[in-house]
Amino acid sequence: MKEIDMKTAMELSGPYSMALVVMVDKNGKPNARAVTWWTFTSYQPPMLAIAIVKTGYSPECLEESKEFVLCLPSRGQEKATWLCGSKSGRDTDKFQEAGLTAIPSKVVRPPIIEGSTAAYECKIVQQLDCGDCTLYNAEIAAMYADFDRLEHIMSMI
Amino acid sequence: MKEIDMKTAMELSGPYSMALVVMVDKNGKPNARAVTWWTFTSYQPPMLAIAIVKTGYSPECLEESKEFVLCLPSRGQEKATWLCGSKSGRDTDKFQEAGLTAIPSKVVRPPIIEGSTAAYECKIVQQLDCGDCTLYNAEIAAMYADFDRLEHIMSMI
Repeated sequence: MKEIDMKTAMELSGPYSMALVVMVDKNGKPNARAVTWWTFTSYQPPMLAIAIVKTGYSPECLEESKEFVLCLPSRGQEKATWLCGSKSGRDTDKFQEAGLTAIPSKVVRPPIIEGSTAAYECKIVQQLDCGDCTLYNAEIAAMYADFDRLEHIMSMI
Repeated sequence: MKEIDMKTAMELSGPYSMALVVMVDKNGKPNARAVTWWTFTSYQPPMLAIAIVKTGYSPECLEESKEFVLCLPSRGQEKATWLCGSKSGRDTDKFQEAGLTAIPSKVVRPPIIEGSTAAYECKIVQQLDCGDCTLYNAEIAAMYADFDRLEHIMSMI
């Protein structure tokens, strides 16, 4: 085995489950960013954590509202997902630019992205300082799936 | 979208990157368990976190030694990986039973599994209580890949 650097480690440690983290800023405007650094952290109660780089707009939104929705994108949302991973929500209305439609969540203020495969409404309960990222650990307050979209994805594999 | 439970959420939120967490018990005996609940948590310094259910043998080992190696299995290690995910290291010598070979790590006491696609030597720096799991966040002290095995996996996709 050869020693490798972090860039290589990231490239070869997949597959990753790409997700969109939906949050709101202090004015209630929704913002979304792509994330692959996330994992479930508890089965009962259901919890998950996201690791978000400390620079950028997302930490402000997350630490202001203490809530987010993790949305798993579906076929047809590839470009929107890419856009949400490559621009800052500080300068861009990503929902408008990516053509995403927000639908109200049941428990939290950040909305769900219409057309997601699955969506998890999350309330942040802990945050952990990790190098250049912050890990936000959250209780999942509500979870949904669109089984028609799942079947479509399954048939593509 | 329909409301779902945690079992369904887990089933449909993949793909996951299945890994083996190698640790040592208080006598230095290596033990390995399968984990899909892991994520990188920092690029610089390189860090990753694993979420491990509080019951079972692994927390004892992890909290005793504060070290582990995260190994990504390669083709041919499917059965060994399954075994490491379905038995307890308290009663079983999983390395022996799964036919795994331990090779010494450079920095930490837990060994690397020979034939891994990639391996990350980790030192636990933080732990977070998360419902029925503990999240162990760790600095990656050394990282390796076997590029011949990667090419083999790539050619199978």
